[in-house]
Amino acid sequence: MTTQTIPGYTYGHPDVARSPVSMEEFERLKQTVLFTEEDVHYLRMAGDVLADQIEDVLDLWYGFVGSHPHLLYYFQGPDGQPIPSYLERVRARFGQWILDTCRRPYDQDWLNYQMEIGLRHHRTKKNQTDGVPAPPHIPLRYLIAFIVPITLTIRDFLARKGHSPETVEKMHQAWFKAVTLQVVLWSYPYARDGDF
Amino acid sequence: MTTQTIPGYTYGHPDVARSPVSMEEFERLKQTVLFTEEDVHYLRMAGDVLADQIEDVLDLWYGFVGSHPHLLYYFQGPDGQPIPSYLERVRARFGQWILDTCRRPYDQDWLNYQMEIGLRHHRTKKNQTDGVPAPPHIPLRYLIAFIVPITLTIRDFLARKGHSPETVEKMHQAWFKAVTLQVVLWSYPYARDGDF
Ligand code: HEM
Ligand code: HEM
Repeated sequence: MTTQTIPGYTYGHPDVARSPVSMEEFERLKQTVLFTEEDVHYLRMAGDVLADQIEDVLDLWYGFVGSHPHLLYYFQGPDGQPIPSYLERVRARFGQWILDTCRRPYDQDWLNYQMEIGLRHHRTKKNQTDGVPAPPHIPLRYLIAFIVPITLTIRDFLARKGHSPETVEKMHQAWFKAVTLQVVLWSYPYARDGDF
Repeated sequence: MTTQTIPGYTYGHPDVARSPVSMEEFERLKQTVLFTEEDVHYLRMAGDVLADQIEDVLDLWYGFVGSHPHLLYYFQGPDGQPIPSYLERVRARFGQWILDTCRRPYDQDWLNYQMEIGLRHHRTKKNQTDGVPAPPHIPLRYLIAFIVPITLTIRDFLARKGHSPETVEKMHQAWFKAVTLQVVLWSYPYARDGDF
């Protein structure tokens, strides 16, 4: 699937609003998560390592969500059943997100799309992209908590292409920083005015 | 310093309010960060490894904060200078926190004190414990972002007591989960009503 054909994927589109986080503030956030040019390098490498494993990664993550009723809940319709089209459409965007995390420059377009993803987890925009009647909001507590599974479970995939343990560790740390940085940006709509 | 003599440390005191997070919800949060009894075991081990290195850990973390003006800012008085008594008092509580993270049972008292720590970073209670005129609020974005330095920098300390790489990795993962779990709980006062 090319990025053009992923339903609801609007990265770089003119209708994605500008992020409320300035580039200057974003630089301070990168410093706070120890994110440097070296991490950009290892994310590119991780992108090459993960590119042909995306479906396996998604199987694992969807398996994790699917095996926890309190998480699967957010994909369910009013009848208490998961909505297949919703799971599928989000899955395609999630796969693209793995590549975007590794390969995109973290520029203004990227920053803007982070705000968009935050809004899509938050009650402001959840369900709208896919036109589904699922629960209206993903709680902040799970958004932050997910840093752990999304970070820990990627490691085995990073180690599958014969890189040295040191290189795998560097890719893994870069991934951890990139995921945390994004959850930080996604938390914006959740915070009380002035608290972000 | 015993816990009795740490200024402002009120763990288990009757005046610490009850956490708004129920034990049932806390169980779901533990599942979401993959936290199990095995992690409790490795946290205990980490406590033994870290106990005589606390000052070194704090030196590193304070060095990190001190070398970033956008972080040191939150310890400063109206004259733009860091307040030594504030740094010192918080440092003692921070040291105790390392041990609490490793050794305390994660029970109702623990849960209550997590809310208290959240409030002390948030505008609700920042500065009150130490009676200082520092900035009134630590932003949510830095609170979440700190998961990375607090996690990555502990690893070398965990590796210094001759444990196998596998055991160090287990202690490190347990630490990562415990820190993320706490930041989740600390984010409560930052979230808009119903968004947590
Ligand atoms: C580290 C935390 C998380 C990451 C990295 C992540 C990743 C993503 C990505 C990349 C998308 C698609 C964004 C797009 O539209 O382009 C998405 C959407 C979604 N995620 Fe997450 N997610 C996280 C936390 C969670 C949690 C805790 C849940 C709860 C089960 C969840 C459920 C969903 C749902 C339901 C959607 C669709 C939202 C909509 O209606 O547009 N996510 N997520
Ligand atoms: C993972 C994130 C963080 C951890 C684990 C952490 C840990 C702690 C601990 C254990 C305390 C003492 C709690 C008590 O009173 O018993 C504390 C207080 C404090 N921390 Fe943090 N902290 C984090 C994020 C931050 C950030 C991003 C800043 C900004 C520089 C910061 C600045 C402070 C300040 C100023 C206090 C004193 C608050 C007061 O007035 O009571 N912390 N922190």
